[in-house]
Amino acid sequence: MLKIENPTATNGIKKQSFLDENFLLKTETAKRLYHDYAKQMPIIDYHNHLPPNEVVADRQFENITKIWLYGDHYKWRAMRTCGVNERFITGDATDLEKFQKWGETVPYTMRNPLYHWTHLELQRYFDENRLLKAETATDIYHSTSEKLNTPQYSVQNLLRKMNVEVICTTDDPLDTLEYHQQFDESGAGFKMLPAFRPDKFILIDNPSFASFITRLGEIVGYELHSFEDLLRGLRQRADFFVKLGCQLCDHGLEQLYAEEFTDSAADSIFKKAIAGQNLTENEILVYKSAILHHLGEMYHTLGWTQQFHLGALRNNNTRMLRQLGPDTGWDSIGDFRQAVALSKYLGGLEDKNRLAKTVIYNLNPADNEIFATMIGNFNDGSLAGKIQWGSGWWFLDQKDGMIKQMEALSNMGILSQFIGMLTDSRSFLSFPRHEYFRRILCNLFGDDVENGELPNDMAWIGKLVQDICYNNAKNYFNF
Amino acid sequence: MLKIENPTATNGIKKQSFLDENFLLKTETAKRLYHDYAKQMPIIDYHNHLPPNEVVADRQFENITKIWLYGDHYKWRAMRTCGVNERFITGDATDLEKFQKWGETVPYTMRNPLYHWTHLELQRYFDENRLLKAETATDIYHSTSEKLNTPQYSVQNLLRKMNVEVICTTDDPLDTLEYHQQFDESGAGFKMLPAFRPDKFILIDNPSFASFITRLGEIVGYELHSFEDLLRGLRQRADFFVKLGCQLCDHGLEQLYAEEFTDSAADSIFKKAIAGQNLTENEILVYKSAILHHLGEMYHTLGWTQQFHLGALRNNNTRMLRQLGPDTGWDSIGDFRQAVALSKYLGGLEDKNRLAKTVIYNLNPADNEIFATMIGNFNDGSLAGKIQWGSGWWFLDQKDGMIKQMEALSNMGILSQFIGMLTDSRSFLSFPRHEYFRRILCNLFGDDVENGELPNDMAWIGKLVQDICYNNAKNYFNF
Amino acid sequence: MLKIENPTATNGIKKQSFLDENFLLKTETAKRLYHDYAKQMPIIDYHNHLPPNEVVADRQFENITKIWLYGDHYKWRAMRTCGVNERFITGDATDLEKFQKWGETVPYTMRNPLYHWTHLELQRYFDENRLLKAETATDIYHSTSEKLNTPQYSVQNLLRKMNVEVICTTDDPLDTLEYHQQFDESGAGFKMLPAFRPDKFILIDNPSFASFITRLGEIVGYELHSFEDLLRGLRQRADFFVKLGCQLCDHGLEQLYAEEFTDSAADSIFKKAIAGQNLTENEILVYKSAILHHLGEMYHTLGWTQQFHLGALRNNNTRMLRQLGPDTGWDSIGDFRQAVALSKYLGGLEDKNRLAKTVIYNLNPADNEIFATMIGNFNDGSLAGKIQWGSGWWFLDQKDGMIKQMEALSNMGILSQFIGMLTDSRSFLSFPRHEYFRRILCNLFGDDVENGELPNDMAWIGKLVQDICYNNAKNYFNF
Repeated sequence: MLKIENPTATNGIKKQSFLDENFLLKTETAKRLYHDYAKQMPIIDYHNHLPPNEVVADRQFENITKIWLYGDHYKWRAMRTCGVNERFITGDATDLEKFQKWGETVPYTMRNPLYHWTHLELQRYFDENRLLKAETATDIYHSTSEKLNTPQYSVQNLLRKMNVEVICTTDDPLDTLEYHQQFDESGAGFKMLPAFRPDKFILIDNPSFASFITRLGEIVGYELHSFEDLLRGLRQRADFFVKLGCQLCDHGLEQLYAEEFTDSAADSIFKKAIAGQNLTENEILVYKSAILHHLGEMYHTLGWTQQFHLGALRNNNTRMLRQLGPDTGWDSIGDFRQAVALSKYLGGLEDKNRLAKTVIYNLNPADNEIFATMIGNFNDGSLAGKIQWGSGWWFLDQKDGMIKQMEALSNMGILSQFIGMLTDSRSFLSFPRHEYFRRILCNLFGDDVENGELPNDMAWIGKLVQDICYNNAKNYFNF
Repeated sequence: MLKIENPTATNGIKKQSFLDENFLLKTETAKRLYHDYAKQMPIIDYHNHLPPNEVVADRQFENITKIWLYGDHYKWRAMRTCGVNERFITGDATDLEKFQKWGETVPYTMRNPLYHWTHLELQRYFDENRLLKAETATDIYHSTSEKLNTPQYSVQNLLRKMNVEVICTTDDPLDTLEYHQQFDESGAGFKMLPAFRPDKFILIDNPSFASFITRLGEIVGYELHSFEDLLRGLRQRADFFVKLGCQLCDHGLEQLYAEEFTDSAADSIFKKAIAGQNLTENEILVYKSAILHHLGEMYHTLGWTQQFHLGALRNNNTRMLRQLGPDTGWDSIGDFRQAVALSKYLGGLEDKNRLAKTVIYNLNPADNEIFATMIGNFNDGSLAGKIQWGSGWWFLDQKDGMIKQMEALSNMGILSQFIGMLTDSRSFLSFPRHEYFRRILCNLFGDDVENGELPNDMAWIGKLVQDICYNNAKNYFNF
Repeated sequence: MLKIENPTATNGIKKQSFLDENFLLKTETAKRLYHDYAKQMPIIDYHNHLPPNEVVADRQFENITKIWLYGDHYKWRAMRTCGVNERFITGDATDLEKFQKWGETVPYTMRNPLYHWTHLELQRYFDENRLLKAETATDIYHSTSEKLNTPQYSVQNLLRKMNVEVICTTDDPLDTLEYHQQFDESGAGFKMLPAFRPDKFILIDNPSFASFITRLGEIVGYELHSFEDLLRGLRQRADFFVKLGCQLCDHGLEQLYAEEFTDSAADSIFKKAIAGQNLTENEILVYKSAILHHLGEMYHTLGWTQQFHLGALRNNNTRMLRQLGPDTGWDSIGDFRQAVALSKYLGGLEDKNRLAKTVIYNLNPADNEIFATMIGNFNDGSLAGKIQWGSGWWFLDQKDGMIKQMEALSNMGILSQFIGMLTDSRSFLSFPRHEYFRRILCNLFGDDVENGELPNDMAWIGKLVQDICYNNAKNYFNF
């Protein structure tokens, strides 16, 4: 690894160079843990939003703007906050103009994870060790784009370069999964598995709900007239997903819903909804509670792992929502109450012995300890780490967020059983985030050892590090 | 103090050994504060759940499983999370088998406070400096059990070994306190005082409420037909507790209740409840608000200190609750709203000049700053530190939890008036947690001094440390 | 800068002296950033509660008790918590007696920001390098009071000594602003601008609401019979504020209110209120939502910056409220839900392209990440850093609070666009808090550089530091 350009220290103090090989590793123990144990482990990226069609097509990107700035709302938000006009973000400026604006923005992102991610990705994928800034942007645009046009930079090669063993995409029950079917695992050298994301069948208050039901009926081959029909239709799609190796599902919700319900009540509400009638707040809650419980039972039957991403407050800027659609950088962290509903949802399934393996993710770090302790309520010895608290997500996917998640998990749960990192990303260039996570993990153990808070047993701690980086996920998902 | 076994550092870097005499003490100032000031102070454990009968009987435990694993749901949760079968936790495996499983689990608990507590307790009570793990478990089982069968390991001797001066147990108003009556303080060399915990008379929505009322009537010698009768009965029990030295009470609630009420409304609701009629949500709230206010007035009259442990979400796993009962490791942290009700409860008493000394404890650390600042609303100069924010409790009783509590208390209150640590434990082996707390406290001051954030005035800071470790509690409770 | 008295280190370890020139600066990089870049920047204190009449009169304070202890409820709370009788706080003790009690209290405030503020202010304003304590209090009282009676200690000179360029006071729409009119900016060498704080016209549930409406009518010269009249009257006052350079407004609320409303509904509710009729909870909400939205539109029209201080739970101690009135030290941190209403309020204005520049401040640090991410929803590239998350406020205006705010802002927003520190203070001696903030800011960057987490580019990071300390606020407000 080359050193990144680093202005000479003029104060005579020995400092660590920016982003050097010991980046984020402050102790000798941390360095050994990372370099001797963590670094070589393959990557299981068990939740992301990569586009399967591009994986199958082994897409080459024409330039770095297309692979890096198109669709990355983290970067968009940063540019907008720095006063960049939307024309250079999602508008009709040229790709070079857009990259130049991003280059001008980068030095202002210092202390934001984008600053680290940007330079890590430039280093790891492009051997580009210069800092991105106004003066270097055009040159970096051209040099990286040139590389992107070589076969080594096809998306499958980018994944192989990062030692990726499995990726799990996120898929609509309505999806044909045609690209998963076409995918040639042995040719690729890694697995690409679908994951089931049925949010649109839960959110009955969405104006498009009835049309989703119609569409599901067309796919399964019969009209869905009842709640029972819906459950049957979803099971049929789940069985189809299973054929393509699906072992996970995911849900993005403000919070869980676990009110008392009966199937007949859910059925009536469902029928009102598809008939276009208005629902009361209570009816919406009852339906959501019912469908979530039934889905939970189904996941248990299928042996899947259910994931829940809870707590986002989305589409706050309706003016820009109208202009650009959802997921374009106008979302933030909510303060929804989480504990009771989460307890009731998980507890309702556990009470029937029907609780699937589960990963819960919170977006508001004020809920960290709720999540850290909730999982312990349902870890009953049947499987090590059966209920997991997921790694820092979205706004929490950064150094402080990861550290807080791992500290809380350590103090209130059992870190050694953690299934570790995932990118949750839409980008083929996000995989150095696993490295970032691993360095932080090793640094935590390193501090503890050198402070006398853990014994200096490198073999054992090295094993735990490797478990968290790879083995736990491998065993948990049976990949 | 012997050094614990410590695999040789092979990287040539000078590290602190695990759990050595300067455990958790990073600066020279911290070391001096701990060794010269904190260490020698006696322990006032003003809130715990020790069984008075075992203290009086000066029980000897047959083996370490019985004293360490029976009843410790912290360890149970850890074992379950690591995939250990319930048979080895609460089931019919032998004590040796259970200890062996715990020994196998311990290395996986690294970074959880159990890892530190385990080795601290082995060192401090048993002079056992080996690490507990699969390979050492059987041997440690036998060597510790052998010691436990010697007179030095009777529970009173265990308490004396830790320099314990006072313990306050937690007792049901229905309790006869026979063991507190039998207890021979001068023989024991420490005090054992009861504390009044009337939760069952507050939680009117508990199906057993009416039976508790009946039982209280039997004890006081007259049937309780009215709310006024209940208050009289509870006062009678409180007076009885006073005779045995009681100065504290405690309450475990999700949150405080402080709605408007009248005594006649409370009386009607009480009568409905003991008649077995259903109560509305609002009636439940009104009753709880009424009884809490009246109890608060009583505590003030008696000169007691009232404690409130707020924010637990209990019995989440109903399947296991049915199997094992409450307090067996299925509880977690809730996100109940705390501030307004806490303010109204305390303020309602203060408004009448009837607010007793109070200690409030939160379980969700997201509420730390609410609690840290709430106490300042009612510290009116009548007594230094009259209203206290209790030390990190349950899931927060660990290094990070303690540090966050002390940092928030420092920044938003006055740390020097803090009455400090308590174990809240059911175990006779938990007292090294006071040492743990003291080391952390000394380390905080040590950092500040060496960073130039506090003056290097060892005599003064040493005094503050001793106050927080012992003198403040001694003065506060008049022990 | 002289060194403060510092008992000799007896353990032979090199330590930093208390409050020396490198206070809070742990790395060489941090020291350079502070001393070479931050220190010399002027101060723009864009939100405080200084009394304009005293500025205009260029008041001299008779003694340090009058300038330091009269009206400082932070110090009062600390004294009460330490058991000081109210007589020495707000009572009839002499100024010397009060100062003596404060001096006795100070050593007990170690680790509270008061301890740092106290000694920083003694150093910076009075060249007083002794520690304040029982033994030094009387002498410090006399020596500081002597200085206060010299012309160099007039309040304008105190501000000039701190290199203050702008102060923005906080003013009632009913205020005549006579002192702002009389203020001679060129003579003073700094600006003093009013800010508009219309809380009393929002809080319709305040018993005095109708009388405030009457008073406003008297000032604008016509009776306010309708909601429209009220809006017209407030606009008239705002226009008057504009003439005196007003560019900011402020609001102190538990939370924002952004329910659906119509102007006619607001009008009916307004009429009920001024007729002395009782309002329902819902009517109160609707009115507050309506007035806030209309005010927001007005601020946008005027080109102002709107500020919101959210989350305080006030007047908890009604007994002392009756005795001393509001703002006397009986307030704490609430746990009101913030995210949805904040989103709706800002989003409702943004949807119409009427969202003004905005600064939001939270009091509960559990809401930090909500606020840190909320601002990104409305930064649309029209202006760098248009929506700001304000610096740690009140209980959060201390080292940990500032660090957490800056870390969250860094990780979830763009620190480099931050408009930085403000005192929010009623005291002429609070301006070293800007120094405190700057040292903490420089220390954060210093750590990052020396840990290799940022490049060692002093010129660039020095620029960012200067931007946050001064340039960003200057540009943001066009001062």
